[in-house]
This record gives sequence, structure tokens and C-alpha cells, in this order.
Amino acid sequence: MTSLTLRRQFTIEWGQCDPAGIVFNARFFEMFDASSWLLFEKALGVKPHELSDAFGIIGIPLVDARADFLKPAKFGDVVEIASRVKQFRRSSFDLEHRITVGGELAVDGGETRVWAARDTADPDKIGAVPIPAEVIAKFA
Amino acid sequence: MTSLTLRRQFTIEWGQCDPAGIVFNARFFEMFDASSWLLFEKALGVKPHELSDAFGIIGIPLVDARADFLKPAKFGDVVEIASRVKQFRRSSFDLEHRITVGGELAVDGGETRVWAARDTADPDKIGAVPIPAEVIAKFA
Amino acid sequence: MTSLTLRRQFTIEWGQCDPAGIVFNARFFEMFDASSWLLFEKALGVKPHELSDAFGIIGIPLVDARADFLKPAKFGDVVEIASRVKQFRRSSFDLEHRITVGGELAVDGGETRVWAARDTADPDKIGAVPIPAEVIAKFA
Amino acid sequence: MTSLTLRRQFTIEWGQCDPAGIVFNARFFEMFDASSWLLFEKALGVKPHELSDAFGIIGIPLVDARADFLKPAKFGDVVEIASRVKQFRRSSFDLEHRITVGGELAVDGGETRVWAARDTADPDKIGAVPIPAEVIAKFA
Repeated sequence: MTSLTLRRQFTIEWGQCDPAGIVFNARFFEMFDASSWLLFEKALGVKPHELSDAFGIIGIPLVDARADFLKPAKFGDVVEIASRVKQFRRSSFDLEHRITVGGELAVDGGETRVWAARDTADPDKIGAVPIPAEVIAKFA
Repeated sequence: MTSLTLRRQFTIEWGQCDPAGIVFNARFFEMFDASSWLLFEKALGVKPHELSDAFGIIGIPLVDARADFLKPAKFGDVVEIASRVKQFRRSSFDLEHRITVGGELAVDGGETRVWAARDTADPDKIGAVPIPAEVIAKFA
Repeated sequence: MTSLTLRRQFTIEWGQCDPAGIVFNARFFEMFDASSWLLFEKALGVKPHELSDAFGIIGIPLVDARADFLKPAKFGDVVEIASRVKQFRRSSFDLEHRITVGGELAVDGGETRVWAARDTADPDKIGAVPIPAEVIAKFA
Repeated sequence: MTSLTLRRQFTIEWGQCDPAGIVFNARFFEMFDASSWLLFEKALGVKPHELSDAFGIIGIPLVDARADFLKPAKFGDVVEIASRVKQFRRSSFDLEHRITVGGELAVDGGETRVWAARDTADPDKIGAVPIPAEVIAKFA
């Protein structure tokens, strides 16, 4: 588990809620994605849209996402999302996204992403490439 | 007013509705956008993502959107959206999107879009260009 | 034109952008809606979800929304949205939402909403009711 | 594994895609949710919004969602989603959602939901209750 953590707080919007008055599940995956980009910006010091240029990759595409919904978040609730990399592997990594409402865990989510670049032999192909050690070091 | 009309029916989803149990307003603009692409596909016989290649344009970007919400659409409602070009001008055009629920007009919407291409002198610039007469003829 | 203005800044997310790399139009209407609720919270001192209880209304439903898209907002752009009530009428009001990117106006939007309550004779019916003078005074 | 399967086809919309030109991950969870409601409608013969009245439940809230993204789906792609209940337990059940593009599996998703009702002793509380055998039988 790395220690660099991205925390942000926001208030649940009317348009994020469903007829049960609680956040519609797909919206939580939007929050995860936004926090992943912000965590990488915080760690690497480059704006999300400059990530590609700075590291010669095409991005950090998602290969897996999941969430346990433990408590609902309602319109007007102030929530906090705390995100960090749980584990780096050779060319992929797991992110943890924990959303709390009033200090209680509401959503326990995760993503798996890859460090992806164009194939040097065939630029039409995209594949996972090794994550540089200096990138991983920034999340320690 | 041109006569070619794109009609499609669908059932309102849970995730499209807000805590009042009715479609959240932003969702109607998603419906308008999807119908505009489908109308162009129907008129011009090319798939939406091939529109650029077929006509040398970069797309039909939106410059204005608007909607009057007359009646709510609820979860489970079967709605119909009927879309057509209201008026072609030299390089822009107005679309009309009318959503009905049970035969009654629920949303009266509209978009203004431009026929946009890269500037031949400066490819970094994008601008409105004249709409070919043969394109307009397809909507008659 | 009232003077109370709600300003908020945020960074455009990956998931808010379309294949052209710019904010998808429907997303701006989500931003308008969220800002309208926040403006009312700022003016009236009640949380958005308490608006109904505090004023005996069922809400401030949208009857019309519109936007001019003047410049695109891209992934990573820091945008500001400034919202205020343009005009109060007897039981409805117009809101103005202006989104700027780098100080330049990108989206010029508006909403018309009504001050809505249940009919005292027939609680199944919802209708526009006069906006209290003390509510309007809070936006001056 | 139950055998009743809900299949539907649709074309990927511009507004469902991100700057990489592929469906933004959160959108797949919208598709899962919509298909779960439609599967229950197909099995039980009641419209989604009538599910509560017909079975004395408040709904089938989601407690867990997950997806593996194997291949991207692009703007204009015709996709099929096939959904069925993988397993019924006493008061919860697992759904499988498989999205294919051109016959190839693109997204392998799943949800866990509960059969939820108000507590008869304390109506403010909601909890999982046993799924009636006749409900389960409809999915065989």
C-alpha cells in the first residue's frame, strides 16, 4: 500500500441522485475516475491532460472497476473521497477509492488500470508497458 | 421547415430520473444530441462517426441548445422523440426535438449547429463553412 | 437584475468530455442545476434539501433551460460559473449562468424556474404560487 | 445459473464516449442498471415502477457492482447486452451483464442486489427480506 492520498470533499448534487433520493450508482464511478486523475496529478506534478506527453504513454486506461455500496449518500450530503494506489505491479496498478459520509464509510471502491503506450513496432497497437520506478517512487 | 423526421421511442430509465422521480433536465439534452446524429445518418446514409470523412468536415458542433419542459417524463414512461431540421442557413442550421409522453408534448427542444471544417490556410483553426446544396436536399 | 451571485470554480473532468475532447453539452446543464441550488442555499440560508420544509413549497422546478456555447471547455481546464437571478416575476424567475474559462465567456446559459407548491384544495396537483417578498429580498 | 436472459441492442452515442473516443466506464453501469430493471419486468410481468406495489418491497437496491473492461466500445458501435440472474440467495442475488461488440465480449459485468422491504416493526428501517420462491421460479 502506497501512502500518498488524494482527498476531496464535495456536496451531493440533485442531478446525481435517483428517485430513491440517493446517489445513482454510476455516479460513484465518475467520482472514482476524477479522483484517479487528480491523484496522478498530485503525485507526478503534471496536469491530467499532460500525463501522456510527460511520460510517453497514451494514458492509464481502466481495465476493472468495482464498488461496495455500504450506506447511501443523499442530496445535500457532504462526502469525502480518499484515493490512493493500493498496489503497483509491473505494468498495472490497483487504486482504492473510499467515500465517507459523516465519517462513516459509504462506498468502498476500486479500480485496476494499466500504464499504456503505443507499440513501437506497430503504432496502431496499444499495450501495457512497465511502470517506471521513478513514477512508483512518487506515490510512496 | 424540412420534412425528413427521425423518430425513436424508448423507456425512461431509473438512472435518468432525479429525486422528484422525473427525468433530470440534462438528460433531455443527451437525447437531443443522440437524435441529431441519427437524423444525419438517416438523411445522408453514413454512420455518425463517418460523417467527417464523407463530407470533409470535422463535425456539426453545437452552438446553442434550449428546451421548454411542459410535462414531466417519469421512470417507466415510454417516450417518443421526433427530430428534424427546422431551417438551414448558409453554414448553420436549427434542429427541433419534440418529446411526447402518451401523445402529449412533454419537452419542446431545439439546437443550433454549424457545418464546421478546418481552415485550409490554418488547419489549427476551425470554422463554419457553407453547407453543400446536396446535403440540404437530403432533408427535404 | 439581482446582485447576489454564486461563484464556484472547478476543473473539467475526463468523464465530462466527449470524443472532441471538450465538455459534452448536457454536462453544462448539470452545472447550471447544481449552481441554482447552491445560490438558493446562499440566499436563504437553508440547505438545498431543506428548501421545501422551510418555505412550504415542493421545490423550484425547471420550466425552461438554454445555453449558448461560445468557446469550448477542455479536460483539465479550470472554469468558473457565476450564477444569479436575473428577474423575479410573480411566481417564476429567470436565472443566468455564465461559465468562463481563463476569464473568457465560454457558455452563456439560463434557466426559468417556478416557485411550486401543492394545491391546498387538491394535493395531487402542483402549481406555481407567489414568491414571498422576503425571499426575493434576500437576493437583492 | 438461471436461464431467463434479457438481451437488448443499441448504438453507442457520442455523449457516452470520452476523449479517447470510447465509452466512459461509468456509462456501462448505467446500462447494467437499466437492464436489471428490464430483466425483472420480463420475468415478473410488471413494469419497473410497479415492482414495489406488486411485491410489497421498496425495490432491489444495489449493494455491489463490478466490471472488467476487455475491449473498448466506440461511438457508433452496435452493442448487445445480455443480462441474467447468476444466483439467488435467501434475500440477495447476483446479476451478470455481458456486453458484446461484433460478437466479442467487451465488458463482463456484475451486480449484487437485495430484495428490500420496510421493517414491519419500524417503517423507517429498510432491510433485506426473503425472496419469494414464486419470484425465483420466474427466472428459471
